[in-house]
Amino acid sequence: MRQPAHGGNLAWAAALAGCPPAAILDFSASISPLGPPNSAIAAIQSHIGNLRHYPDPSYSDLRLALSHFHQLPFEWILPGNGSAELLTLVGRELAQLAATVVITPAFGDYYRTLSAYNAQVLEFPVNWESTADLSAFLDKGSKNFQDMGLLLNNPHNPTGKLFFREAILPYLDQFALVVVDEAFMDFLSPDEEQSLIALVQEYENLVVLRSLTKFYSLPGLRLGYAIAHPDRLSKWQLWRDPWPVNTLAAAAAIAAIQDREFQQQTWLWLPPARSQLLQGLAAIPGLKPYNSAANFLLIESNRSITQLQQQLLTDSQILIRDCLSFKELGDRFFRTAVRTQTDNQRLLTALNSVITAEC
Amino acid sequence: MRQPAHGGNLAWAAALAGCPPAAILDFSASISPLGPPNSAIAAIQSHIGNLRHYPDPSYSDLRLALSHFHQLPFEWILPGNGSAELLTLVGRELAQLAATVVITPAFGDYYRTLSAYNAQVLEFPVNWESTADLSAFLDKGSKNFQDMGLLLNNPHNPTGKLFFREAILPYLDQFALVVVDEAFMDFLSPDEEQSLIALVQEYENLVVLRSLTKFYSLPGLRLGYAIAHPDRLSKWQLWRDPWPVNTLAAAAAIAAIQDREFQQQTWLWLPPARSQLLQGLAAIPGLKPYNSAANFLLIESNRSITQLQQQLLTDSQILIRDCLSFKELGDRFFRTAVRTQTDNQRLLTALNSVITAEC
Repeated sequence: MRQPAHGGNLAWAAALAGCPPAAILDFSASISPLGPPNSAIAAIQSHIGNLRHYPDPSYSDLRLALSHFHQLPFEWILPGNGSAELLTLVGRELAQLAATVVITPAFGDYYRTLSAYNAQVLEFPVNWESTADLSAFLDKGSKNFQDMGLLLNNPHNPTGKLFFREAILPYLDQFALVVVDEAFMDFLSPDEEQSLIALVQEYENLVVLRSLTKFYSLPGLRLGYAIAHPDRLSKWQLWRDPWPVNTLAAAAAIAAIQDREFQQQTWLWLPPARSQLLQGLAAIPGLKPYNSAANFLLIESNRSITQLQQQLLTDSQILIRDCLSFKELGDRFFRTAVRTQTDNQRLLTALNSVITAEC
Repeated sequence: MRQPAHGGNLAWAAALAGCPPAAILDFSASISPLGPPNSAIAAIQSHIGNLRHYPDPSYSDLRLALSHFHQLPFEWILPGNGSAELLTLVGRELAQLAATVVITPAFGDYYRTLSAYNAQVLEFPVNWESTADLSAFLDKGSKNFQDMGLLLNNPHNPTGKLFFREAILPYLDQFALVVVDEAFMDFLSPDEEQSLIALVQEYENLVVLRSLTKFYSLPGLRLGYAIAHPDRLSKWQLWRDPWPVNTLAAAAAIAAIQDREFQQQTWLWLPPARSQLLQGLAAIPGLKPYNSAANFLLIESNRSITQLQQQLLTDSQILIRDCLSFKELGDRFFRTAVRTQTDNQRLLTALNSVITAEC
């Protein structure tokens, strides 16, 4: 079986670990350990009887719920079959420009979607060792970006760096199109988040992508949405089939975004669990974890991660995310999700045991 | 609310009828009234716990099950988020040819996907008043089709005509690419069906699309698949996101295609129920139903269907499919699904009462 280019490939991991997929403790996919919320599961259960009907092609109920959630007219919201599906539409849109600036290391599927439409790619490395500062590298080139697109995620994957709203703002005037993938933004509490959603009505050239996959632990259900100018979204609807979102995903999404209790729990869980994991990793010889605003950490290592990953699988049935698909990182980095404090401790113990045995 | 361009838009119908969507008796979507099979529902229920994981991006279990079902190596099978998603990939493929021949009247989404990629369209009307005979109209033009694609469905929607395998075969040598949408083929029993799936390994230029939506009554779940040369399918995978099929759809599909009992029931139900409906419709003054190989019937009428449709909704909460989206048909045709004999009788009674009241 081929080495997966994305986290969460449990079929591959289970074959390597010699155990059923359900037995794998998965730190490779950056999914919340708290979900799925009971509210979403109940919504799924109660809509199974509706599967005999086509979804409403305008997804009115879902868009109305998202409209309330973001305080935005519902014409500005387009649900998708995971934000991954919407990323493909973004790729087609970006390919119509002279080039697209990608902040590297970048999520592998950005390259997939850009090359699917033969888009020109310009890579700018993020300065992820120090404070996240977009201006530091983009301005340096003093390039003319008027006929180009900018594609970045915020918080940035895999470094976990957060770009402040003010750091991105100037580029809305400089680029023909700015696409901000906010797949992990909801992990930041309302007083910390740096979403650009509130600016979409001011900037016709801004597209924001959101995912319900990670925060609500529903990657198997496929649900994300795009926020952008209604004309752009209407155009995208002609580029894809009429019923991209399945009935159960639409129902679960409506329930999930209204589940304030689950959201509060997540914001209470993440900061201490992330600190615990960060400190525990920093204490292991040869590992250098980077601070993160998201529910994952990037770790630099003085040894091969391919070996470490395999050993964790066979010894402890624990799966971490290698960074081979991020070409700037290669075999000396790995990414790990933040999970519950008990799970995090299992990872720390397993890592300590593998690394101590090697020394 | 806008008039829907496709059947099964219950939100629209319920608003018109002044009742909840669940109260509508839906003859507009060509979905089996027998499903969903219990086996598929059980599979959905038992996989809800897996939603916290990404689907296997290679969909190995599903492709293996389809591979057994069709006795075809699994590399030749690509699952999709409904066959509608795969149709979009077909549109991109066809747009690379000089033109695409479409058999009209044609399913509206064919035009959507072809125009999404600026494909040239050549329309050839099917002779649906008499026996289904492809050669009758294609050969007449004696055109050179070597740099063109052919897109047709079999059985043909909305006429219900069945093209025999031998009628399509010659075009595999004449066209650069032949796409046969077999969304309704599984309604024909094994001794009657005319699928081209068995020919895919012989013809690199053949693509067959299949749907699990209609036969297994699961349009809300989104599941279809394409059968074509592995090189073509690999290319398509780079054109779309890595997890198009949700976990529950994949599980339901595996259970459904193994449910021989449900399949047998369907083949026993359809022919007599279709005859009942055909004969009942033919007995109503001013209606002329056409014979069909599928689970729907096309009916010509001597009065406006828009009015008839609205009256059936308000009087009887029954939804039929107008044919306004088929530009060759317009307001004098409607399509109706074949349902259970009890439901069919409700439709016949309601139609009789509306039409008698008008006389």
